[in-house]
Amino acid sequence: MKIEHLVEQIYRKNSFLCIGLDTDLERIPNHLLNEESPIFSFNKAIIDATQHLCVAYKPNIAFYEAYGSIGWEALRRTIEYLNEFYPEIFTIADAKRGDIGNTSYRYAKAFFEDMDFDSITVAPYMGRDSVEPFLSFEDKHTILLALTSNEGAFDFQTKKIGERTLYEKVLETSISYKNSQNLMYVVGATKASYLAEIREIIPDSFLLVPGVGAQGGSLQEVCKYGMTENVGLLVNSSRGIIYASKDHDFAIAAAKKAKELQDTMAKELKKKN
Amino acid sequence: MKIEHLVEQIYRKNSFLCIGLDTDLERIPNHLLNEESPIFSFNKAIIDATQHLCVAYKPNIAFYEAYGSIGWEALRRTIEYLNEFYPEIFTIADAKRGDIGNTSYRYAKAFFEDMDFDSITVAPYMGRDSVEPFLSFEDKHTILLALTSNEGAFDFQTKKIGERTLYEKVLETSISYKNSQNLMYVVGATKASYLAEIREIIPDSFLLVPGVGAQGGSLQEVCKYGMTENVGLLVNSSRGIIYASKDHDFAIAAAKKAKELQDTMAKELKKKN
Repeated sequence: MKIEHLVEQIYRKNSFLCIGLDTDLERIPNHLLNEESPIFSFNKAIIDATQHLCVAYKPNIAFYEAYGSIGWEALRRTIEYLNEFYPEIFTIADAKRGDIGNTSYRYAKAFFEDMDFDSITVAPYMGRDSVEPFLSFEDKHTILLALTSNEGAFDFQTKKIGERTLYEKVLETSISYKNSQNLMYVVGATKASYLAEIREIIPDSFLLVPGVGAQGGSLQEVCKYGMTENVGLLVNSSRGIIYASKDHDFAIAAAKKAKELQDTMAKELKKKN
Repeated sequence: MKIEHLVEQIYRKNSFLCIGLDTDLERIPNHLLNEESPIFSFNKAIIDATQHLCVAYKPNIAFYEAYGSIGWEALRRTIEYLNEFYPEIFTIADAKRGDIGNTSYRYAKAFFEDMDFDSITVAPYMGRDSVEPFLSFEDKHTILLALTSNEGAFDFQTKKIGERTLYEKVLETSISYKNSQNLMYVVGATKASYLAEIREIIPDSFLLVPGVGAQGGSLQEVCKYGMTENVGLLVNSSRGIIYASKDHDFAIAAAKKAKELQDTMAKELKKKN
């Protein structure tokens, strides 16, 4: 997907919400467990109920891998369903991959070609030749971890390398990678106050922002410091939306939670214009 | 697997060779493509022909993911075969995972419980709470990326944070993680000269050393600077062994290549004692 189509969708829906599909058999409604593919049935119901309120879905690949080939098949059906029925929606494989060149290229082919995701999250630790294989796919996006939403982010990411922190170094260095126009970055909502400085290094790039909701980040703060001319934000919520209810009304309850976030987003977009 | 069983195996076989199962349908012999599961058939033949010469196998998960649920099923059959017929062999899921706590725990369950691998490779960028979920499994080992064998390692890993480089900081910090006795580290053979300093920080930990062979690292250098009282090394070769021939003799050719490395390893072990 081209960035302009994502931006166009954001303005049309008045939303920059990404819904995380962290689908867990222990947390989905019991009545779905008798379905042929409970994971896919859950995802389909959530997607159908919320697709008008969000612009992106982000399956967390760990949750699918945990169920082996069954989980993998459910992931494939989910992405195929999205691509067939809601092709305007931006899809993110939250996989946090990254390896030597020939291996990264395998991951890129799996997620971009075989499954046709629009984007994938990638860890930067192994540097240029672990990231560039992902960047070489046209109209596909590589979402590099910069400053993550968890406590462990302070172990290395915020440590100083000369004048810069490691995550700033990641931002700066990645700009020089081949096809860096295909880069986006993960910046946690729990660290929204860092966004002003981040925007000095990458003024226009899209940011995927986890940590609103279950992890406690503030949507208003994220918008205040992170929003750009083109919005430049995809704010993710996973558990807070998809597990709003464990009953037959789970999809309606999820839509209600998504609507609350979308309402706030609409206000922020109005404020901007 | 307990470390002492790995060490015992190393001395019994006079080998610290790990064989990387980077199984690629485009590189395996054509006659296998008619088999029900070409990937598993290839792996089984390689394993049967080389298991007396090595102490570990390391499937590179990207290569399996690239084939979706078929690849995933082949991976499962491979690990089940290893665990049933060669339970003394150390198994490594080369997955380079790492995410927020609840997600890392999912990956750990998938690879340690569901598939019963002995170990997994993990990326350190997200810090403590992304690594500790892996460390909490008894007799399972977390192989943290420290200094990787690729060119991109110089982007961030060798950059200075105060007196230390980032990879040294990763080594130092990880020692304070809960259950850090379950840690091993990836250190590329292409950077063997760094091993002396690495051994000052982690004198006894096992190192998984990729980059001998196709990537050009020297086995003798690795042993000179990296070997410990308990050997402390697993030296990996993937493509150099498994793709030694594309003909009907592929397994024999692989064993021949493995034997060459094992011969050198036997000499190094003799030198040590």
